[in-house]
Amino acid sequence: MASPQVANGNGSLSLKKPSETKGKTITCKAAVAYGPGEPFVVENILVHPPQKMEVRIKILYTSICHTDLTVWQGQNESQRAFPRIFGHEASGIVESVGEGVSEVKEGDIVVAIFNGECGECVYCKCEKSNMCERFGVNPMKKVMEGDGTCRFSTIDGKPIFHFLNTSTFSEYTVLDSACVVKLDHGHSLSLKNLTLLSCGVSTGVGAAWNTANVHAGSFVAIFGLGAVGLAVAEGARARGASKIIGVDINPDKFIKAQAMGVTHFINPKDEEKPVYERISELTDGGVHYSFECTGNVNVLRDSFLSAHKGWGLTVVLGIHSSPKLLPIHPMELFDGRQIVGSVFGGFKGKSHLPHFATQCGHGVVKLDNFITHELPFEEINKAFDLLIAGKSLRCLLHF
Amino acid sequence: MASPQVANGNGSLSLKKPSETKGKTITCKAAVAYGPGEPFVVENILVHPPQKMEVRIKILYTSICHTDLTVWQGQNESQRAFPRIFGHEASGIVESVGEGVSEVKEGDIVVAIFNGECGECVYCKCEKSNMCERFGVNPMKKVMEGDGTCRFSTIDGKPIFHFLNTSTFSEYTVLDSACVVKLDHGHSLSLKNLTLLSCGVSTGVGAAWNTANVHAGSFVAIFGLGAVGLAVAEGARARGASKIIGVDINPDKFIKAQAMGVTHFINPKDEEKPVYERISELTDGGVHYSFECTGNVNVLRDSFLSAHKGWGLTVVLGIHSSPKLLPIHPMELFDGRQIVGSVFGGFKGKSHLPHFATQCGHGVVKLDNFITHELPFEEINKAFDLLIAGKSLRCLLHF
Repeated sequence: MASPQVANGNGSLSLKKPSETKGKTITCKAAVAYGPGEPFVVENILVHPPQKMEVRIKILYTSICHTDLTVWQGQNESQRAFPRIFGHEASGIVESVGEGVSEVKEGDIVVAIFNGECGECVYCKCEKSNMCERFGVNPMKKVMEGDGTCRFSTIDGKPIFHFLNTSTFSEYTVLDSACVVKLDHGHSLSLKNLTLLSCGVSTGVGAAWNTANVHAGSFVAIFGLGAVGLAVAEGARARGASKIIGVDINPDKFIKAQAMGVTHFINPKDEEKPVYERISELTDGGVHYSFECTGNVNVLRDSFLSAHKGWGLTVVLGIHSSPKLLPIHPMELFDGRQIVGSVFGGFKGKSHLPHFATQCGHGVVKLDNFITHELPFEEINKAFDLLIAGKSLRCLLHF
Repeated sequence: MASPQVANGNGSLSLKKPSETKGKTITCKAAVAYGPGEPFVVENILVHPPQKMEVRIKILYTSICHTDLTVWQGQNESQRAFPRIFGHEASGIVESVGEGVSEVKEGDIVVAIFNGECGECVYCKCEKSNMCERFGVNPMKKVMEGDGTCRFSTIDGKPIFHFLNTSTFSEYTVLDSACVVKLDHGHSLSLKNLTLLSCGVSTGVGAAWNTANVHAGSFVAIFGLGAVGLAVAEGARARGASKIIGVDINPDKFIKAQAMGVTHFINPKDEEKPVYERISELTDGGVHYSFECTGNVNVLRDSFLSAHKGWGLTVVLGIHSSPKLLPIHPMELFDGRQIVGSVFGGFKGKSHLPHFATQCGHGVVKLDNFITHELPFEEINKAFDLLIAGKSLRCLLHF
């Protein structure tokens, strides 16, 4: 896995020779969003050279996550910024690096992480947190951290905004070095599968492993069986959970889920009683761990109540729009149920992902089931349609 | 401490000889509440013999806690039941036991616990919880668990309801054995100080020790400096917290608080900016642990935001009236702050209090400052006035 050519395994890498592009503006294809929910326009844009502590990478695979969808749709007005390049799950190759970057070099295999790790702030220095003061998750951030400007522009020179520190819906993108993780040693994963570690799989598996610390023999409930929910299932399965209950209103998801360790299924539409009561019956009073992966507050409440009194833990992964409050009365905390949030599965990207990639390579977590579709990058709008229709887990886009 | 006479230290125990009262109804003084907020009537009542797995104790000292106040005032209609005998902090001596009771016997020094420990249920058998399926906290419960009737009646035979498994505002009371903790060995505490372990001090110190697990050198914020809040401070001081910030709108409380380890004071009325911002300034971004001891949701939010992002923990101890929701947006959980509830400080009454009493006896926790007043039982209404006026921490009532 030392060279991109081997890593890719496709034998068709189109990385221009570094000497040709280093320090220069690159003209390449990107999918530009010009307004909330407006179809992506795949067109040539300009990608400017990486500045101090920045890295320009050539994306080989990118995929679509629900967060791209919700911010693109502009549900939260304060997060709107157009034109913009979305996308935050990707693997690729370093094309060039800016001043001061020593962790990666041209030709390295890397994945993009939206939740960066500067290594310097109080959070990066604390083992209890995977937040980062400068490069944490912020859907409102639209420019580079270093100088507050954009590295993308339209052919006629108008700036195009960034997204989640990553903007991977482009053949080339520029990221802060804190948001680039080198993954070219110690694992046997294909570049396609590496893409999954960039967000969805890490988020779900990590929520089960790092945030909840699921134990062998435990009972688990997962609300929402998209890619993140199924990654939670895969993480819980790997930890030896004895009952993994999947909850979704789309029964098509149950087939896939079964292959990923889900042992029981509940379709709320088929139930007369509240889902948490059904789960309580199945688990002698409630699960040890419940995971909310839908972003719906009613589901969040069901999820909270499905955890066992006294010790049950609810992990919130879903993205909830403002201004809703937690649907929990303060006194309900006295029942001993706990609720926590989980971002990027509690993984510190640079510190933890290399080991996680090795574990995935050893088959501890099975990645193959997550990629359900693959399309040329130009068909990105079709990929979004598949996600919206609930037909895809991850649709890989290749350049 | 083997005999009540020694333990009491007053040399004036009026315990009737067991042979005189065992198996008989006792006529004695109690403070009966006949309606929400109506002054207590101190009058003779009948206390019937303990039934199977029940214990009748002679109360020597009882004190008043805010929970007595709020339920007596009837703020939550569903909790109303009159006539009723309130009170849940008390130390006393076992007068007689019902069938099957083997853990305590006549003459044992005991404290009452409102959060019982049956020893048999899933919670009692789990080290993660101090809940109890049968004898947990339930302000709506008004009769004995065993047969659903009352052990108290008026002189003319009308039942008087129980409260919080304890009803200690009576010279004699009947409790389930699960709610009686024998504390007559291994410590050097007076009966007066033992009373404090029955609720307030255990709740506060335990929240710092068991629920939050406060560490040496940490920063702590306490919202509300009543007896429970100050017990949190005492627990945090004992653990070596380096900054203990007390927040209260009553500056009179600061003098007492200083003696109990509080290092910084904030009176929200004196602040132009939100309290959590002030705390953030004092602690370089927020405290490790914040404790909400007021039952006010706005204070709860301040408390939550005063905890440091990434690892700060908020412990809720205050009693909040329905139907308010937690004033937290689901997405705020992604900042890595956690919030949990704490009941009886996470102590399992029977399993943990004897050791805690020993620690208190060794001076690990200083109890003397908590008893600010002492009055004859007949002056119970005056004791309530002191609590309402914020003048007392604990006012001991003696018979």
